[in-house]
Amino acid sequence: MTHFITDAEVAARLDAATAVEAIRDALLAAYRGRLVAPPRVAAPLAGGRLVLTAGQLVDEWYGFGSYDTFGHAEGEQVVALHDAANGRLRAVAVGAEIGSRRTGALGGVAVRALARPDAATLGVVGAGGQAWAQVWAVAAVRRLREVTVHCRTPAGREKFAARVRAELGIPARAVDTAAAAVRDRDVVVLATTSPTPVISAADLSPGSHLNTIGHKQLGRSEFGPDLLDRADLLVTDSLAQAGAYDPPMLGTVGAYAGRLRALGAVLAGEQPGRTTPDQVTVFCSVGLAGSEAFLLDRLTRPEAEPAGPARPGRGAGPG
Amino acid sequence: MTHFITDAEVAARLDAATAVEAIRDALLAAYRGRLVAPPRVAAPLAGGRLVLTAGQLVDEWYGFGSYDTFGHAEGEQVVALHDAANGRLRAVAVGAEIGSRRTGALGGVAVRALARPDAATLGVVGAGGQAWAQVWAVAAVRRLREVTVHCRTPAGREKFAARVRAELGIPARAVDTAAAAVRDRDVVVLATTSPTPVISAADLSPGSHLNTIGHKQLGRSEFGPDLLDRADLLVTDSLAQAGAYDPPMLGTVGAYAGRLRALGAVLAGEQPGRTTPDQVTVFCSVGLAGSEAFLLDRLTRPEAEPAGPARPGRGAGPG
Repeated sequence: MTHFITDAEVAARLDAATAVEAIRDALLAAYRGRLVAPPRVAAPLAGGRLVLTAGQLVDEWYGFGSYDTFGHAEGEQVVALHDAANGRLRAVAVGAEIGSRRTGALGGVAVRALARPDAATLGVVGAGGQAWAQVWAVAAVRRLREVTVHCRTPAGREKFAARVRAELGIPARAVDTAAAAVRDRDVVVLATTSPTPVISAADLSPGSHLNTIGHKQLGRSEFGPDLLDRADLLVTDSLAQAGAYDPPMLGTVGAYAGRLRALGAVLAGEQPGRTTPDQVTVFCSVGLAGSEAFLLDRLTRPEAEPAGPARPGRGAGPG
Repeated sequence: MTHFITDAEVAARLDAATAVEAIRDALLAAYRGRLVAPPRVAAPLAGGRLVLTAGQLVDEWYGFGSYDTFGHAEGEQVVALHDAANGRLRAVAVGAEIGSRRTGALGGVAVRALARPDAATLGVVGAGGQAWAQVWAVAAVRRLREVTVHCRTPAGREKFAARVRAELGIPARAVDTAAAAVRDRDVVVLATTSPTPVISAADLSPGSHLNTIGHKQLGRSEFGPDLLDRADLLVTDSLAQAGAYDPPMLGTVGAYAGRLRALGAVLAGEQPGRTTPDQVTVFCSVGLAGSEAFLLDRLTRPEAEPAGPARPGRGAGPG
């Protein structure tokens, strides 16, 4: 029987520590070639496209996530997982939670691997579902003392800060500018829909780590080249996907291309991560294909049990 | 809430007459440009591909069917239907029934539009799920007096004939050769996995209609060019998809290309169908994209009610 999963079940069963562990395993599997993650394919419709991101854990499962580009605020996605032995559908998830928690967990893995072990402050620009998932995951890998948040509407950022306090038990403040949100922060998250830079590199503190979730293409990016110039270390979750953007991803053009590294290589210990406390590290999140199915597999394995609450600080060392 | 649908529910709720009506509407909507049905897209994995066929009924819904090419006998598919107004998933079906009944209904529409109104005998080559769905649909559009069936294994064809008798209440016989199955038949179905011709055109009676469901490409086809030469009328459910085969579909090469017509155009009355009782008509089924989602929409509309049993002979006139 196929296991049908809704957002409510994902929210109830998937804690951040489990998600971060699963996605770390996905990144390592992709780096080692066990997770096959081809470039996404899209079918054109009137007014938007249907996009398929496929993945395969060799000899275990194959599956996909689907989403569209119609831009509906409450649009839902499908994540499907086939058993490799017989092609049957083991699980199908519907909604937005698998996708956003997957992206959150990618950010969590990057912070765990690259932020300073004593990182304790988090600044967020953006207050949507993706921003929330980042805070959710980062709180599972570092002991956060305070979260600051900025978005364009005062009501939106106040609501976000209240949610951080209520659901994660972390002191949180809404602030008036993006610069104020990220100043003096150990970890910074950009998760906006902005096509133009929302902060400048000068706003960042030495030793900070930054995750960028939003637009990051030439001519359409939530940050500018100054951020990449400032970065001592530049990583992404998929070099292949990063290289397939059109227009190109900022981190893949000119001199940046030679500096962009696979997060999986850092996790595997085959590329250096942070080597000094005052380096600035930047993670360009592209959404590793197959990772939604990877997370669905972890969530629906027969032996999977609802895990305990998030354990801040667990596994605070690199990867 | 998303309506999750399994094969058991499809089998219980979808009668053949309803399926044929829905797929006729889909063919007309595609012909008139309301059903957007782009070519399928595929993501390569190790040992197979994941294929997405997308469709969109403008201003009503968009959706997809997914399947793979790993060749599992019991492999399952996903069919998903998004509400065009908000992107939410109205329904998700898992299994094989929507897909095979969709293909069956395409064949049923072709028979209703092109077979002689008094067609009463059906000969089938192949005894798998696709062959069964053809008989199921044809029985809803013509009053069948007898079904003959051939496949390679005696046990397989006897079982198929017994199922026709038991589930459709139609006399049915298993026969030793493909030629014997189709000789003197008003309607013929080829639904095999054979890469080489299973009958010759000389086996067909004047006035017969044939549906081909299996391989139909240059160098890999369940029939030979003699069948196309014999056909007075050659139709397909999607000229665009027929033209996208690689290697090319037999009916699109050389002189055949100019003769191949859209079934939707015949249904719309803009191309002639059968004009005399002794013409031979041939339907090359390619699986109109978007038609799985169309069927799922019909099955899960709020006003949809489980319909009664199949009504043989209903709507026996052309399209």
